Amino acid sequence: MTLRADLDFLLYDWLGCERLTERERFAEHSRETFDSVLETAEKIANDKFAPFNRLSDLQEPEFDGEQVHLPQETKAALQAYTEAGFLAGSQDAEFGGMQLPVTVEMAALGFFKKASISMSGYGLLAKGNANAICAAGTPAQIEAFAKPEYAGRFLGTMCLSEPQAGSSLSDILTRAVPDGEGYQDDPLGPRFRLKGNKMWISGGEHELSENIVHLVLAKIPGPDGKLVPGVKGISLFIVPKKLVNPDGSLTGERNDVSLAGLNHKCGYRGTVNTLLNFGEGKYPVRGEGGGGLDGRGAGAIGYLIGEAGKGLNAMFHMMNEARIGVGMGATMLAYAGYEAALDYARDRPQGRPFAQVGPDGRPVKQAEQPQVPIIQHPDVRRMLLAQKAYAEGGLALGLYCARLVDEQHTGSPEAAAEATMLLEVLTPIAKSWPSEWGLEANSLAIQVHGGYGYTRDFPVEQHWRDNRLNMIHEGTHGIQGMDLLGRKVIMEGGKGLQLLGARMQRTIAQAAEIPALKGFAQALGQSLQQVAGATQAAWSTGKPSEALANATLYLQAFGHTVLAWIWLDVAVAAARRDDTFARGKLAATQYFFRYELPKIGAWLQPVAERDDTCLALDPECL
Amino acid sequence: MTLRADLDFLLYDWLGCERLTERERFAEHSRETFDSVLETAEKIANDKFAPFNRLSDLQEPEFDGEQVHLPQETKAALQAYTEAGFLAGSQDAEFGGMQLPVTVEMAALGFFKKASISMSGYGLLAKGNANAICAAGTPAQIEAFAKPEYAGRFLGTMCLSEPQAGSSLSDILTRAVPDGEGYQDDPLGPRFRLKGNKMWISGGEHELSENIVHLVLAKIPGPDGKLVPGVKGISLFIVPKKLVNPDGSLTGERNDVSLAGLNHKCGYRGTVNTLLNFGEGKYPVRGEGGGGLDGRGAGAIGYLIGEAGKGLNAMFHMMNEARIGVGMGATMLAYAGYEAALDYARDRPQGRPFAQVGPDGRPVKQAEQPQVPIIQHPDVRRMLLAQKAYAEGGLALGLYCARLVDEQHTGSPEAAAEATMLLEVLTPIAKSWPSEWGLEANSLAIQVHGGYGYTRDFPVEQHWRDNRLNMIHEGTHGIQGMDLLGRKVIMEGGKGLQLLGARMQRTIAQAAEIPALKGFAQALGQSLQQVAGATQAAWSTGKPSEALANATLYLQAFGHTVLAWIWLDVAVAAARRDDTFARGKLAATQYFFRYELPKIGAWLQPVAERDDTCLALDPECL
Repeated sequence: MTLRADLDFLLYDWLGCERLTERERFAEHSRETFDSVLETAEKIANDKFAPFNRLSDLQEPEFDGEQVHLPQETKAALQAYTEAGFLAGSQDAEFGGMQLPVTVEMAALGFFKKASISMSGYGLLAKGNANAICAAGTPAQIEAFAKPEYAGRFLGTMCLSEPQAGSSLSDILTRAVPDGEGYQDDPLGPRFRLKGNKMWISGGEHELSENIVHLVLAKIPGPDGKLVPGVKGISLFIVPKKLVNPDGSLTGERNDVSLAGLNHKCGYRGTVNTLLNFGEGKYPVRGEGGGGLDGRGAGAIGYLIGEAGKGLNAMFHMMNEARIGVGMGATMLAYAGYEAALDYARDRPQGRPFAQVGPDGRPVKQAEQPQVPIIQHPDVRRMLLAQKAYAEGGLALGLYCARLVDEQHTGSPEAAAEATMLLEVLTPIAKSWPSEWGLEANSLAIQVHGGYGYTRDFPVEQHWRDNRLNMIHEGTHGIQGMDLLGRKVIMEGGKGLQLLGARMQRTIAQAAEIPALKGFAQALGQSLQQVAGATQAAWSTGKPSEALANATLYLQAFGHTVLAWIWLDVAVAAARRDDTFARGKLAATQYFFRYELPKIGAWLQPVAERDDTCLALDPECL
Repeated sequence: MTLRADLDFLLYDWLGCERLTERERFAEHSRETFDSVLETAEKIANDKFAPFNRLSDLQEPEFDGEQVHLPQETKAALQAYTEAGFLAGSQDAEFGGMQLPVTVEMAALGFFKKASISMSGYGLLAKGNANAICAAGTPAQIEAFAKPEYAGRFLGTMCLSEPQAGSSLSDILTRAVPDGEGYQDDPLGPRFRLKGNKMWISGGEHELSENIVHLVLAKIPGPDGKLVPGVKGISLFIVPKKLVNPDGSLTGERNDVSLAGLNHKCGYRGTVNTLLNFGEGKYPVRGEGGGGLDGRGAGAIGYLIGEAGKGLNAMFHMMNEARIGVGMGATMLAYAGYEAALDYARDRPQGRPFAQVGPDGRPVKQAEQPQVPIIQHPDVRRMLLAQKAYAEGGLALGLYCARLVDEQHTGSPEAAAEATMLLEVLTPIAKSWPSEWGLEANSLAIQVHGGYGYTRDFPVEQHWRDNRLNMIHEGTHGIQGMDLLGRKVIMEGGKGLQLLGARMQRTIAQAAEIPALKGFAQALGQSLQQVAGATQAAWSTGKPSEALANATLYLQAFGHTVLAWIWLDVAVAAARRDDTFARGKLAATQYFFRYELPKIGAWLQPVAERDDTCLALDPECL
């Protein structure tokens, strides 16, 4: 089984993506153009990314006081990626994009994530950044900032967190004040001066591109000079590292954005991660608005994007796709580990099966027989099948969500509205589930390798380290749980959950007709009822603190139920074929229903009982 | 809560270790001497180990072609450790030991493991090595090899694995042939020449000590020159790096043991890990037996220890204590992470609790209120409570096993026999459970820290990397599962399981008298029945392949049941007190019964059904 074969099955046999070419937006495309995109992605990923993934880990980004150094191979990889058009795969043709369905783009990007999650970070960030500018910015902003990103001349970042406010965006302290009297007349948008520190900024400083376009959340002080508490006062700004003319050329002047330090991470090392200072005076800019914050050029120049006070909306547009993208990254790391473990298990001879029991009743092995490849051991197969279930299941989920995004953009109004609602509910799962179980897959890949897997001579320990980030960034596991149980399943009277339930029932009805899947169809129906019951029970007192006390466990149970549904739906499609590939899909489905889905009982019990063990705990007892 | 307070409670209130001083072997001791050992351990661990744990990770062992370089701080730490007597804490006074109960020794060593698992590796290996020589060797071997180890002049290793035979010891290829006619006349024991490669040898090469004593498994060829298949032909040899006179002084001659390479690990980096060549001719030794294997000095000199062909017995004596020790290492890493996460969670302000629901039915926060320390969030408390349950539970289990070892050595014949049987059943759990859940604790510690936990500025990512080794070395998880379900619970007609069940019933009866614990007592009774039922069902067809197809899941379920029992037993002792400490133990018990124990259902189901999803899987489907 190859990733490509899996993608072909999921895109065409399962999701019917070929029919998307009937839609106006994708009319120039055909299965042939999709296939050629996948081929190109696989080739560049294999040639330019995969061979240097370990190098990107060992040769960590380094700051010499002037510049951040990265391996030359990262730059070469990015160049090949850019030249093949992957920075703007799904973007409008008018902005230089290929106008691919998001589903196909997501599939293609999977090859790069599998080959090197940290080397592919730069391109993914630039795409997300430029897409956000296209969605919320003015034509001038698109021209000056987004287009150079799609062309690979500029790269981009998302600057949300601050040292004192990680997940709590309402507490950011970065200030943006109008840059002089004429601040509204700048062709690039209302011009502000920004001052503040931004933490955890991936791609915040490097020499991979001519320029770096920072998208920065900041607050515009009220008339009393104070920042408004909460998220309402947050605006979004374009803050380029180097100042830019309206045609996207550089003015030659540096903006006041400076590197305060690099974060030295456990994994994901090839993506440089930074603490940035905005407007601290290292690169003062007098600019057109006068003297800046202090009359001496302090404050980084930033251009308001979208409406003042609506910065989170623009950012969350980007964030939702980013969250699905994080989930896909976790999935592709799981996939990479699974491939490595499978190769190893087929090749490595070790031990023998238990042939019989001896006279003392104990099992015995036949030591004179040759050793067998470890894939012959049931426990090794279990670890491989689990990885398959996590990696391929996560991939199916990610593509399903991408298909919903396409429906949002190009479906009928009703279909688009339904897709939007389903995405609200599924996004926390698409982000969190692969982050948790992809990590477990990587741990199992190490385990299959034994001691070798724990060394840097094999790739799996790096996958595992890389993947540990995914439960943290773009909203931690805990935040996804509160988002799901505290917002998504109750919004609009629980409509999202109802829509999802209806889709599950459709799959259940189809699976019930297939003898091999009938039992799983029943099990999914029961699990869905359990989840729905726990949702109700959690909210039955109407108190958020009680309802959400076990939200992370709810997230886990919800996630496993969604994945059981995804696997069952995949199995329905696979059941139409009769080959090794299809039997593999059915085996993974069987594994998921017998070994994984039963776990939800233990997770849902405290949710349904509104168990207050953690909520009521006196912290002094810890 | 401090580790010391926890140890005092577990050793004295729970395990009644003070009464051990009534036994002859420990007559010189008192609670005061035990306390002073614990104090010394804590002080040296805090002063000499903990501050350099990160250094030991960053300054990885390096081979310059001549010598392996380690940080000077590792040597200094080891020196303090040696001078305080920790190399021989529980050993006989006649061999230079302190004759401490193993339980107290295990407790004291916990401080070093928590401070730096990889720096403490050298001392632990030397102790295990010397203990094995004392158990199976001759007085001359003890004098020449073990005593210098206890004195810290020599360090030691265990050489089992080979590149082609990791877990499968029956397949080792290292050969040992008699060293000339007079090979049996050497004062240090029958002298052999060894030739072969040993993989994964911790402490295999360094300059921390005058000499390194390798304990090497090898096969003595039969009269036909062939190696006997299986484990029966395996013997154990003492192979010093430098040759030794009977008084333990060095002869000045190097033995033919050479470093083939260092393994570069994901974690646990401070313990150098090596591939060693024995007898490959790099340091030829003519010696007294003539020319060695090839007449030109080839073959490393090794002295047979114990009986020929019984090498595994001597090694497994060492291995069982090593396995409990590995579990304790995993536990102490969990403990270290828990302490760090707890400190962080108390100090770090972030976010606010949900105060109420807004008019739209969604929960809202009061943004104008100051941020709260994250320990106020129920999900953070859940992650801390889980860590407490894993770390403190693992500690209690490890000390319980150590207490059984003391009973083996110093109890009445009946008590010793019972302890031996219980240890057979509990050792796989004592090794595997902390390895799995200690790792999970470390992952949760990272999660509590958010992005900071993923950086090298905080200790928790190192704990997590270090701990990943523990499911692999000293018998993988899969091997522990087969050992438990394939041997330990069925040996002697299931006597070990019956004895364990009786101990659990005793705890259940005590807990049933305490209102706060009554419900948990019932739950434990049911879980025990579930485990017993699954054991029977697994073996009901008498076919090892079917019974053992899901042995790892059995191990997990058995482990969680054992830990539920340990927690309940600890809670019975804690219920006698009424303070924050005791309430903390009860909270962790409650957490374990409500959030953890229910997981066993999902694990036992495939075991009891002899689910053949993995066993019957066609590997081509993967």
